[in-house]
Amino acid sequence: MSERVISPAVIKRLPRYYRYLGELIENEVVRISSKELSIKMKVTASQIRQDLNNFGGFGQQGYGYNVQYLYDEIGKILGLDNQQNMIIIGAGNLGQALANYDFSRVGFKVIGIFDANPRLEGLAVRGIEIQMVDELEEFVKSHSVDVATLTVPKKNARPIASKLEELGIRAIWNFAPTDLKVSDDVCVKNVHLDESLMTLSYNLRHRGNEKYSYNSYMND
Amino acid sequence: MSERVISPAVIKRLPRYYRYLGELIENEVVRISSKELSIKMKVTASQIRQDLNNFGGFGQQGYGYNVQYLYDEIGKILGLDNQQNMIIIGAGNLGQALANYDFSRVGFKVIGIFDANPRLEGLAVRGIEIQMVDELEEFVKSHSVDVATLTVPKKNARPIASKLEELGIRAIWNFAPTDLKVSDDVCVKNVHLDESLMTLSYNLRHRGNEKYSYNSYMND
Repeated sequence: MSERVISPAVIKRLPRYYRYLGELIENEVVRISSKELSIKMKVTASQIRQDLNNFGGFGQQGYGYNVQYLYDEIGKILGLDNQQNMIIIGAGNLGQALANYDFSRVGFKVIGIFDANPRLEGLAVRGIEIQMVDELEEFVKSHSVDVATLTVPKKNARPIASKLEELGIRAIWNFAPTDLKVSDDVCVKNVHLDESLMTLSYNLRHRGNEKYSYNSYMND
Repeated sequence: MSERVISPAVIKRLPRYYRYLGELIENEVVRISSKELSIKMKVTASQIRQDLNNFGGFGQQGYGYNVQYLYDEIGKILGLDNQQNMIIIGAGNLGQALANYDFSRVGFKVIGIFDANPRLEGLAVRGIEIQMVDELEEFVKSHSVDVATLTVPKKNARPIASKLEELGIRAIWNFAPTDLKVSDDVCVKNVHLDESLMTLSYNLRHRGNEKYSYNSYMND
């Protein structure tokens, strides 16, 4: 493997590879050529091969790729080969919706849900009882928590993110419509719903206008 | 204005400009220099000026930009200057959470919610009663619908998307973990929660590894 840095564009494509390969497995497809994969991924077959060469030689000349093997290997690269535990901070509508979402497909399990509203205490969501935020520290000390999902109002997001960092959480999935202020030690992935919707609005407004149109694969 | 096509990278930044300018307005900031904006946006001041020059000359040498004016102009470019109506298809946890989300900040109003489960019929979410999907056609004919949000199971997403296209809907905000098959006439914005979480998992797994790290601004 060369020493060059793997480009963000490649890294961005990995989850989509994983999703497509998962679908191929569901459809009992055993092998796939770079050409067939390139059609699904909407990148060239040559780009597919380059992408995958970053991580090792997965294909065989004339055979293509073994779907299950490629799926498993990309899963390892994505860090999905072990179960990872998630806690959700903010048990409002969005937090509860995420607690009900099935993340097992990508190896995540929700093990705790926290909120500041005492009226939510003890309410069970998907079998997990909502706890109060003052129990967060104790919980994080006694459990293995990989990711904290933030579904709190904008004004609470930064203080809570700082608290999570103090408690040793190193990955935050942030749904609050603001930037977090944490050190570079903490990985943050933002899901800015407003911005996503604004992008759709832009495209709808400028449909058919070649100068303004955004025709690349519009995926988050 | 030149005839060149506006790059996707610029278009991607517009919602973030809009969000930051909105925050500046909340904080009663009247004007901002390209340098100050560049710090918030994490792109160079020169890039800021180039970005905004795509859409007209908004700044004044030595003055910088008038925040309210820039906010309003970018709002127009994003298509947010008129109220837009959204319907939500799929009134499960995520659909209901989105029905409760405040999109008024970006000029959207939820005017209808639909599901196939008869047990949900008539249940009110944020004052809107859930209707059955067989009422969708009539509703779309008698209302002005700009965007349809899809929060249905994967297996229903494509059939429903095709139906929406038939009914004349030209923008779909898709939360189902699959690609939609609609014509180029329909703008689609995907929110692939699984893929977003997988990206976070990748970063957590490869933290500190320069070769594998993805250190650019990780925003959807």
